[in-house]
Amino acid sequence: MSHNSFGHMFRVTTWGESHGPALGCTVDGAPSGLPLAEAELQHWLDRRRPGTSRYTTQRREPDRVEILSGVFEGVTTGTPIQLMIRNTDQRSKDYSEIAQKFRPGHADYTYWMKYGIRDYRGGGRSSARETAARVAAGGVARKVIEALAPGCTVTGAMVQMGPHGIDRTAWDWDEIERNPFWTPDPKAATDWAGYLDGLRKAGSSVGAVVEVVGRGVPAGLGAPVYGKLDGDLAAAMMSINAVKGVEIGDGFAAAALTGEENADEIFMGNDGPRFGANHAGGVLGGISSGQDVVVRFAVKPTSSILTPRRTVDLEGRETEIVTKGRHDPCVGIRAVPVGEAMMACVLADHLLRHRGQQGANRGSIGKGGEP
Amino acid sequence: MSHNSFGHMFRVTTWGESHGPALGCTVDGAPSGLPLAEAELQHWLDRRRPGTSRYTTQRREPDRVEILSGVFEGVTTGTPIQLMIRNTDQRSKDYSEIAQKFRPGHADYTYWMKYGIRDYRGGGRSSARETAARVAAGGVARKVIEALAPGCTVTGAMVQMGPHGIDRTAWDWDEIERNPFWTPDPKAATDWAGYLDGLRKAGSSVGAVVEVVGRGVPAGLGAPVYGKLDGDLAAAMMSINAVKGVEIGDGFAAAALTGEENADEIFMGNDGPRFGANHAGGVLGGISSGQDVVVRFAVKPTSSILTPRRTVDLEGRETEIVTKGRHDPCVGIRAVPVGEAMMACVLADHLLRHRGQQGANRGSIGKGGEP
Amino acid sequence: MSHNSFGHMFRVTTWGESHGPALGCTVDGAPSGLPLAEAELQHWLDRRRPGTSRYTTQRREPDRVEILSGVFEGVTTGTPIQLMIRNTDQRSKDYSEIAQKFRPGHADYTYWMKYGIRDYRGGGRSSARETAARVAAGGVARKVIEALAPGCTVTGAMVQMGPHGIDRTAWDWDEIERNPFWTPDPKAATDWAGYLDGLRKAGSSVGAVVEVVGRGVPAGLGAPVYGKLDGDLAAAMMSINAVKGVEIGDGFAAAALTGEENADEIFMGNDGPRFGANHAGGVLGGISSGQDVVVRFAVKPTSSILTPRRTVDLEGRETEIVTKGRHDPCVGIRAVPVGEAMMACVLADHLLRHRGQQGANRGSIGKGGEP
Amino acid sequence: MSHNSFGHMFRVTTWGESHGPALGCTVDGAPSGLPLAEAELQHWLDRRRPGTSRYTTQRREPDRVEILSGVFEGVTTGTPIQLMIRNTDQRSKDYSEIAQKFRPGHADYTYWMKYGIRDYRGGGRSSARETAARVAAGGVARKVIEALAPGCTVTGAMVQMGPHGIDRTAWDWDEIERNPFWTPDPKAATDWAGYLDGLRKAGSSVGAVVEVVGRGVPAGLGAPVYGKLDGDLAAAMMSINAVKGVEIGDGFAAAALTGEENADEIFMGNDGPRFGANHAGGVLGGISSGQDVVVRFAVKPTSSILTPRRTVDLEGRETEIVTKGRHDPCVGIRAVPVGEAMMACVLADHLLRHRGQQGANRGSIGKGGEP
Repeated sequence: MSHNSFGHMFRVTTWGESHGPALGCTVDGAPSGLPLAEAELQHWLDRRRPGTSRYTTQRREPDRVEILSGVFEGVTTGTPIQLMIRNTDQRSKDYSEIAQKFRPGHADYTYWMKYGIRDYRGGGRSSARETAARVAAGGVARKVIEALAPGCTVTGAMVQMGPHGIDRTAWDWDEIERNPFWTPDPKAATDWAGYLDGLRKAGSSVGAVVEVVGRGVPAGLGAPVYGKLDGDLAAAMMSINAVKGVEIGDGFAAAALTGEENADEIFMGNDGPRFGANHAGGVLGGISSGQDVVVRFAVKPTSSILTPRRTVDLEGRETEIVTKGRHDPCVGIRAVPVGEAMMACVLADHLLRHRGQQGANRGSIGKGGEP
Repeated sequence: MSHNSFGHMFRVTTWGESHGPALGCTVDGAPSGLPLAEAELQHWLDRRRPGTSRYTTQRREPDRVEILSGVFEGVTTGTPIQLMIRNTDQRSKDYSEIAQKFRPGHADYTYWMKYGIRDYRGGGRSSARETAARVAAGGVARKVIEALAPGCTVTGAMVQMGPHGIDRTAWDWDEIERNPFWTPDPKAATDWAGYLDGLRKAGSSVGAVVEVVGRGVPAGLGAPVYGKLDGDLAAAMMSINAVKGVEIGDGFAAAALTGEENADEIFMGNDGPRFGANHAGGVLGGISSGQDVVVRFAVKPTSSILTPRRTVDLEGRETEIVTKGRHDPCVGIRAVPVGEAMMACVLADHLLRHRGQQGANRGSIGKGGEP
Repeated sequence: MSHNSFGHMFRVTTWGESHGPALGCTVDGAPSGLPLAEAELQHWLDRRRPGTSRYTTQRREPDRVEILSGVFEGVTTGTPIQLMIRNTDQRSKDYSEIAQKFRPGHADYTYWMKYGIRDYRGGGRSSARETAARVAAGGVARKVIEALAPGCTVTGAMVQMGPHGIDRTAWDWDEIERNPFWTPDPKAATDWAGYLDGLRKAGSSVGAVVEVVGRGVPAGLGAPVYGKLDGDLAAAMMSINAVKGVEIGDGFAAAALTGEENADEIFMGNDGPRFGANHAGGVLGGISSGQDVVVRFAVKPTSSILTPRRTVDLEGRETEIVTKGRHDPCVGIRAVPVGEAMMACVLADHLLRHRGQQGANRGSIGKGGEP
Repeated sequence: MSHNSFGHMFRVTTWGESHGPALGCTVDGAPSGLPLAEAELQHWLDRRRPGTSRYTTQRREPDRVEILSGVFEGVTTGTPIQLMIRNTDQRSKDYSEIAQKFRPGHADYTYWMKYGIRDYRGGGRSSARETAARVAAGGVARKVIEALAPGCTVTGAMVQMGPHGIDRTAWDWDEIERNPFWTPDPKAATDWAGYLDGLRKAGSSVGAVVEVVGRGVPAGLGAPVYGKLDGDLAAAMMSINAVKGVEIGDGFAAAALTGEENADEIFMGNDGPRFGANHAGGVLGGISSGQDVVVRFAVKPTSSILTPRRTVDLEGRETEIVTKGRHDPCVGIRAVPVGEAMMACVLADHLLRHRGQQGANRGSIGKGGEP
């Protein structure tokens, strides 16, 4: 019951605080024999790294990942992989105000109520810096996916910033890497740039919706009834800082549909069954169907804003607070690579589980009905 | 890594299929010394029981729960509590069509792809009948909550049926028990009755949104970063049949807000800090704040409808299917007591975890700032 | 963290008390597609059943096992298998003495200190009746082993009763099924009969040592460093009632050896490497080597004897107690099938884990050294 | 299902190889508010450190522990504690022989068969260097014990070297810290010195038996039936390198006793019940009784000896091997602090579990019998 671990066969335990000497994670369960280099993990970390555009926090962290164990001569050995990232830009500043007051919307209050102590420097353990370790773990997960489900990919995209959604008919996968918002809609990228500049200058912040899509996910991942693939994805995404909602496929929109509208009819294609639609988001009864696995999550606006907010201090006196630190006007942006990493970890975990439990007994269709 | 268990300190393992001889659950971790009678559990099961109104499946199941272990002379002993419910109305019918074809939107297809075998009678393990066991477990969870957090209650309500939401200003907690939809809005209850009658007669179905509220939840439940209270609630709700989305507090609506709008300011009340709003839904940084814990989940329309849908059979031939069995036109109705049970189980689990790990070190406010 | 579960991929949760209406277990994780009938499980239960000779308790229990879920048309479906055994001979007797006093060597005292309540009828949850559920689970485990490691067998034997060991040079596997002590040494069987008759008539009891051997266990099961095969076997055996010690291979005798004596040299046989000895008991570095897996465990004498022993009562008064119930003069006898069941469950669990994690990457020897 | 973690509420995950850049562990679950300094952990590490006498390996490692997270201003915060120890003396040597051959009695063979790759430098992950991380974690565990069970101590001692046992009537707790063998018998310390010098010079090795005693352990730790305190201790000790047997209390000797001899009678002392003997080793029915918790484990002789042994190479050719590296003639010596650390971790875990689950409902004796 580690509160800082997730996954079963592919198990990740993260550690570290925003302003401690380092942070990192232990990845336990990666099969032996996978080539793994620091540079490969660095690629994913660089996507999440702060300070890459004017739309993310100006904290300067190289986020260099070191592999301390589990890899021998460039190949995984099946033993735990320790990944460490040193913190370098823990700017010396005056934390006395934050140490005494509770920032509304932050975890300051609840950490204090739970633990009676908190590392207030940059949010301590509740800081989104912890997600750097997840992204590193996600890099290992992608290697597992590559080995066990070749062709399977995981891609995240921002599909809504504040009240502004994208035009889904303009979806362009290649566009995602071309703009600082990871959005697939070029027009949205342009519009959002102006919108976010305004918010940033005003010292304000805004929420977002991120969509992560797993393509090429084999059918059969997930298990009833509390090891469902969508249940694990929901827990994984909800564990990301500032996430307040998760949905699969049509999600909340499915509530407004009739059974006729919601049915994903099945047809026979050249390579086996194919579906006429994907309202289900690739998961039926908690098990992947072979369609794209589609997850969306809502990120609330960061609570660190320049407008004073009412709060109380440790002595119980009412007061005001303004959060002046380096912050993200839209934390949803940097949540994109984190959401990808979480889906990659969940898929790697379920691929390993599936191989263990059910691999020999899969069903098939159109071959006499025998497994 | 049991796929059929949830919780850590309060751990529930369910078993059983729709048309097997019985179903039930093992509840492990309930403290000793709690009075527990079958009648108390029966109260909650009767709320979920099929056939109580014309808006739910006409399958007739008394859903009588038997306590087979863990209770001695009316009191829990700290050993595992086995709860069993016999199936009685497994109507003998012709399942040959379902056995050969895959019902779109059902788990038929994915179970087959995963296991190469499926109990097609009534959906087998993927049937919502499994949730009867959860509701029984939820009854035990409520006893734990009563002992550890007196005054804490868990109440579910339907807040949207199909496209029709409720008027939240008309919210009346007492109304919930007075209508067959568990809705707090009397006008919605009347409107929905007519709407659902139409769908039912047409052999159609519709989705819904259910809200579950924990009132009186103590501050400090949940732990960073993968044992978050909201993460566990998300997994719990997503594990309920037909659920496609989960949100906490403002949820997806938070994506459209600015930081100023989203901040729950803190003031000093007579009994300690109080919040000016509850956008966060009672959870900050994964830990309860002492405010109401508010969770909503979206239920898709049941896929069992009378309109023929295109599908394939085991031989890979394209065909059509109509599902004629006894089904719920809006499964969201019976999901209300299930959602309550899941929140009760999660809270019981976290109350026990919290007592174990952090109980001695809670912080306080306004008493000199010392824990 | 269920205290009543063991295993990960093959996960067993037992429930029930000595004098409750029933006891049983949930087996979660058995792959789909295995033929499974009640009669097959009954075979193993009959070996552990009380009252089969004058050397075991005279409680009369048919120990009929019912499969309540997880099997469809005689084949496992991959969903949880619920096995239930009804208690029938809960003789109505006067438990008032036991209810008030603590029997030395029993769990009476510690259950009371932990839970503040105990089901004193026949020991409640601490009774060895709980092991009936394990034996049923072991029957399922054997089916998993049969499917994943054909030819692998698990056999238990009593190798010491009280101070009397066996002549290991006389070991005859077939003899084990021919005497009431499951001993492989015919002479010991004869000697022990007279010895135990004497103890039984005197109302006394005696300890024993049981050896369980897994033959045909594939190399590669177990994982460093806390998921070691021998670590899991040690926990499994120590969890059996009255067990006070566990050893692998030479066990405690290895402490007296030099490195030269203890080395199991390796040679090349026709089918690959073979070992010159098996001091290690088939496990090196926590991973199976392909040799016989040899585990021994020590069972203390049952504490239920006719000679009065000094104790205290609930009021804290010093007193004496005599335990008059139906008891086993040598509980080690009935521990033999239980030990077998535990090893079968551990092996099934590790076979499934291994398939999941490392199956594709095993090494080989003498084929160019490449995996 | 992390193979590199142990414990539930107090959860330790170790990582690292003998010749990697570093090794360490994540300690998750330590309550907040405990003072914790590197120097305190260093104290325990120094006891296990290699090269402290001529009886342990001559590898020179300072084993300096760094706290990388979870501690703020000298106090635990309730977040994961990362402890790192850099490897410094990974002597550059020629590993080509070991890389090609399998050392009898080592994990070389089984790692290869499982993973198809192994880090052969110094044994990689199978090296006893991993236990440095356990000892660091044990230091944190002792702080938890100190807070939750003041006065509870954990002490290890060597009670047998090779065939030479100690005189238990000469047991002197203070003597343990005075000799290089951690033995409580001064005469044994002298005798063993000569004996081990002989073996060391001959390039041989020998086994040992270590006893670990928990004094002041509160009654009520452990839970039926697979979360037993003795079951967890057995798994913990068996997970230590080279351990082949574990026993509690009288252990294997109990097999030779009658029920009369084995009974620990109960009397009423000034402070409550007291026992007339401790055959049970402080555990009844898997739950601590309040007596000393006594665990012994057998350590086999290290397989690294100068006498050539027969083996095979990767190509399947028969050959011989001599292990020339720096090794411990009696690894049992350095297993003493490791055994202590494992018991400390198990007790810390169970203290936290107990507080969570049953703390409010403990029974008492002599106060009217009410909890």
